[in-house]
Amino acid sequence: MSTLDAVLSRIDQDFDQSIERLFALLRIASVSTDPAFKDQCRAAAEHVAADLRSIGFEAGLRPTEGHPVVVGKAKGGAGPRVLFYGHYDVQPVDPLSLWKTPPFEPRIETLPDGRKIIVARGACDDKGQAMTFIEACRAYKAVTGKLPLSITTMIEGEEECGSEHLFKFVRDNAEEFKLDLALVCDTAMWNQDTPAVTTSLRGLVYEEVKVTCADRDLHSGLFGGAAQNPLRLMAKILGALWDDNGRVTIPGFYDGVKELPSDIKADLKALNLTEQQFLGQVGLKHSAGEKGRLVLEQTTTRPTAEINGIIGGYTGEGAKTVIPGEAIAKVSFRLVGAQDPVKVCDAFRAFVRERMPADCKVEFANFGLAPPLQLSFDNPALTKARTVLAEEWGHKAVAVGAGGSIPIVADFKQVLGMDSLLVGFALDDDRVHSPNEKFDLKCFHKGIRSWARILDALAQ
Amino acid sequence: MSTLDAVLSRIDQDFDQSIERLFALLRIASVSTDPAFKDQCRAAAEHVAADLRSIGFEAGLRPTEGHPVVVGKAKGGAGPRVLFYGHYDVQPVDPLSLWKTPPFEPRIETLPDGRKIIVARGACDDKGQAMTFIEACRAYKAVTGKLPLSITTMIEGEEECGSEHLFKFVRDNAEEFKLDLALVCDTAMWNQDTPAVTTSLRGLVYEEVKVTCADRDLHSGLFGGAAQNPLRLMAKILGALWDDNGRVTIPGFYDGVKELPSDIKADLKALNLTEQQFLGQVGLKHSAGEKGRLVLEQTTTRPTAEINGIIGGYTGEGAKTVIPGEAIAKVSFRLVGAQDPVKVCDAFRAFVRERMPADCKVEFANFGLAPPLQLSFDNPALTKARTVLAEEWGHKAVAVGAGGSIPIVADFKQVLGMDSLLVGFALDDDRVHSPNEKFDLKCFHKGIRSWARILDALAQ
Repeated sequence: MSTLDAVLSRIDQDFDQSIERLFALLRIASVSTDPAFKDQCRAAAEHVAADLRSIGFEAGLRPTEGHPVVVGKAKGGAGPRVLFYGHYDVQPVDPLSLWKTPPFEPRIETLPDGRKIIVARGACDDKGQAMTFIEACRAYKAVTGKLPLSITTMIEGEEECGSEHLFKFVRDNAEEFKLDLALVCDTAMWNQDTPAVTTSLRGLVYEEVKVTCADRDLHSGLFGGAAQNPLRLMAKILGALWDDNGRVTIPGFYDGVKELPSDIKADLKALNLTEQQFLGQVGLKHSAGEKGRLVLEQTTTRPTAEINGIIGGYTGEGAKTVIPGEAIAKVSFRLVGAQDPVKVCDAFRAFVRERMPADCKVEFANFGLAPPLQLSFDNPALTKARTVLAEEWGHKAVAVGAGGSIPIVADFKQVLGMDSLLVGFALDDDRVHSPNEKFDLKCFHKGIRSWARILDALAQ
Repeated sequence: MSTLDAVLSRIDQDFDQSIERLFALLRIASVSTDPAFKDQCRAAAEHVAADLRSIGFEAGLRPTEGHPVVVGKAKGGAGPRVLFYGHYDVQPVDPLSLWKTPPFEPRIETLPDGRKIIVARGACDDKGQAMTFIEACRAYKAVTGKLPLSITTMIEGEEECGSEHLFKFVRDNAEEFKLDLALVCDTAMWNQDTPAVTTSLRGLVYEEVKVTCADRDLHSGLFGGAAQNPLRLMAKILGALWDDNGRVTIPGFYDGVKELPSDIKADLKALNLTEQQFLGQVGLKHSAGEKGRLVLEQTTTRPTAEINGIIGGYTGEGAKTVIPGEAIAKVSFRLVGAQDPVKVCDAFRAFVRERMPADCKVEFANFGLAPPLQLSFDNPALTKARTVLAEEWGHKAVAVGAGGSIPIVADFKQVLGMDSLLVGFALDDDRVHSPNEKFDLKCFHKGIRSWARILDALAQ
C-alpha cells in the first residue's frame, strides 16, 4: 500500500472524529465584524492554534490591530514550501429568525435528495474548508509521523470584514512568508461532482465621478435649452463606455487581455452553461456582455465596465423641473490577465475628460485599484492538482476564473512573489453568508482526501 | 387734450395714492401655501374685491376648495371683452432672517444707482403687477366715468401653490369667462428700458422612467459582464436623446416646431444677448443647446429635453460593487409651437422601449403634459400693445418667449378658446420668490400708464 493510500484510508477511518473536530470549531461564535464577539474570535484562534500544535506545528497567535492571525509552521518533506491561507472568522448570523436551528450549534441533516450536510455558520465559509486542509495534514502526520511538505499556515480572523489588518501583517512580515506556493481553500467546486481550481481572479478599478456644470441648480423653464446638464453629460459619456457588441470602448482598455488557451476554453465550453441557465436565476435571459463569448468568459476571464451608482437632480416623488448643478456616478472595472489597474484608471479618466465641455468640471475619487491575478495555465502545481482532483472525484477538474477579487491573494503575488493555488469544495447551494449555511459531508470528506492527494503530488 | 392724455395725466397726479393703495395690499400676509395664513388670504381677496367695487366693478369672492377667486365685472366701451388675470397670493417669506426689514411692512428704498424701489413680499409678484392694471382702470373711471372696455377680472389666490383649484373653477364656469382676450400681468420686461410682450410659453412633458433588469441587486464580481445593468441602459438610452448638434433625436420630436418670423428673430438678435452673458450668471460659458441658434431661441422658442434626475445603485460613501436591479430617471421636455404633448410623450416612450433588451422592463409615469402656447405674431392686440408700449417706454417692445409654462394660460386657450396677451413689468433683479423682493417705482408707474395705453388702443 502506498503512503497516499494509507493516508486516504486513515482519513476515511477517522472521518467521524474529523466531523467532531469541525463541530468544536463551529461552536465558537467568531463573528469578526461585531466587537461584541471579540473574545470568541480570540477563542477560535486559540482553538485552531492548539489543534495545529497537536499535529506537530509550531503554532501561535500573531497580533494585529484587529483579530490575531494563527501562524503555524511545520517542517516536512522536500518539495515546494507552501503557505496555507484560510480564515477562522465568520459572517454575522442576521437575520437569526431565519435559521432553523441555532447557528452555532452544528448538526447533521439529510436533504430530500439524500445528501448529508453540516449546518452551522461557518460550516463551509471557511471553517469547514480550512479544516479539509488541516485534517489532511493530521492524517499524514498520523500515518507517516511527519508532513509531506514544509507548511506554514496563515489562518486569519478578519476575512469577513475585509482583511483590513492582514495586508499590513503580510507586508511587515514579508520575508517570513515568502515561500514557494500559496494554497487557498475558500472557493467553490463547479458542481457536486466536478472539482475546480480557480486560476484567475479579476482585478478592480473603482472610481467615483463628480460632474459639475452650473454653480447652482437651475429652473429648466429659464435655462433649459442653453445650460449644460450634468446628468445629460453623465448619460452621454457613460453611455459611450460600451459599443453595440458589449465591448468597452476606452482606448487601450483591452491591453494585456489574452485569449484563453484552446484546451481551457474547450473545457469551459464543455460545461455547457447557457446564458439562460446562468441569468435565469436572477430573472434575466440575455447576456449584456461581449457578443460571441461564453457566459463563463464574460463573468470570469473577460474584463468589464459597470455603472454601480448614479445620483443627481430630483429623485423624490412627482416632478421638479430642475437642471441640477452636479451629478455623481460610481463606475468600476473588473480586470483580467495583465491589465494594469493604474493604466485603466487613467484611460477612463481621460475618456471622461475628453468628453467634458470646457466650462464644466469633473472630479474623480478612487475607491479601488487591485490588479487581476492569473495563474499560468502551465504552472506545474496546477497541472498536478487538476490530475489528482480528477482521480479523487472521477471528473476532470476545471480551471475556472472567479469574477470577483480576493485582495490578499493579490498581495501574495505582489508582496510575497508567490502564486496561489485556489482549490475549494463549496457548492452553489451552501448559503454562504446566509441563514442555514451548510457544507456537504461529501465535500468535507472528499475535500480532505483531495488535499492529501495534492500534498502528495506536490511532494513528488 | 385726448382722453388718453387726460388719463395718463390723472395717473401721474394720483401716483402717490397708487403707492398707498399698493402698500395697503402688501401689508396683508396672503401666503397661500401655508394654512396658517388662510384668514389673511381671505382678507387680501376681500380687500381686492372692495377696491374693484370702489371703481365700478361688480366684484365679490367666488369660493373654490382652496382660497377664493376675486371676480369683478364692469361694462365699458365697445371693443374686445377682456379677462384680466392676476393673483393676490404671495410666496412664503423664508428665510425671514435674510430680509432687511419685515416682508409685510412695505417701504420705499433708493438703490445706489438712484432707482427707487418698493420692498415687500409681493411688491412685484403679483400684487404690484396686478395693481398696475387696476390703477389704470381707476384713472379711466376717474376721468371718463366708465371703463374703456368691458372688463372681467379673475384675481386668484393660489398661483404660488400651483393654481390647484383654479383649473376646475375655470372649467366649471367656462361659459361665464369665454370672452375675447385675456390680459395677464405676471411677466417681465426685457430690461429696465425695454418693454416686452410674452408671446409664447413652452409646454411640458414630464416623465418618470423606471428600468428593471435583474430581480435583485447583484454582485458585480459574480454577474458583471453578463447581467444587464439598468444604469448602463439608462445612460445608453438617455445619452442618445441628443445628437452632436444638441438636437433631440426622438423621431417626430420637431413636428409642429416653426421658425420665428424673420422680423421677430431680427428683434431678438438685436437684443444682442450672448451665451456668455446669459450663462455667465450661473458659472457657465458655452451653450449646450442646438447649434446655430440664439440663446434666446434655445431657452424660449425651441423645444428641449432634460434629464431632471437619476437615481440607482450605490450612492453612499466609498465603493460597493453592486449591479443594481433597477434605476429611475426623471426626463422632461419643453415644447413650443404646435408640438403635441401626447405625441411627444408617446414618441419618447417608444424611443426608450425600442432600446430595451427583451428581458428587461421599463415603466413610465407621467407628471406633466401641458401644451405650448403661441400667440400669433399677427394678432392685432399684440400689434397694438407693442406699438403703445414703445410709445410709453421709448424703446421697441420685444416679443419674447417664456421658457417655462403658466398652466392656467394654457387653459384660457384650451378651455375658454381665448388668446392671452402677457405684458409685465418685472425686472430680472426683482428677487421674486426670494428675500427682499422689490418692484421699481418706475415700473409700477409706467406699468399703470402702459395698461392705460393698451386699454385705449384695444378700444379703438
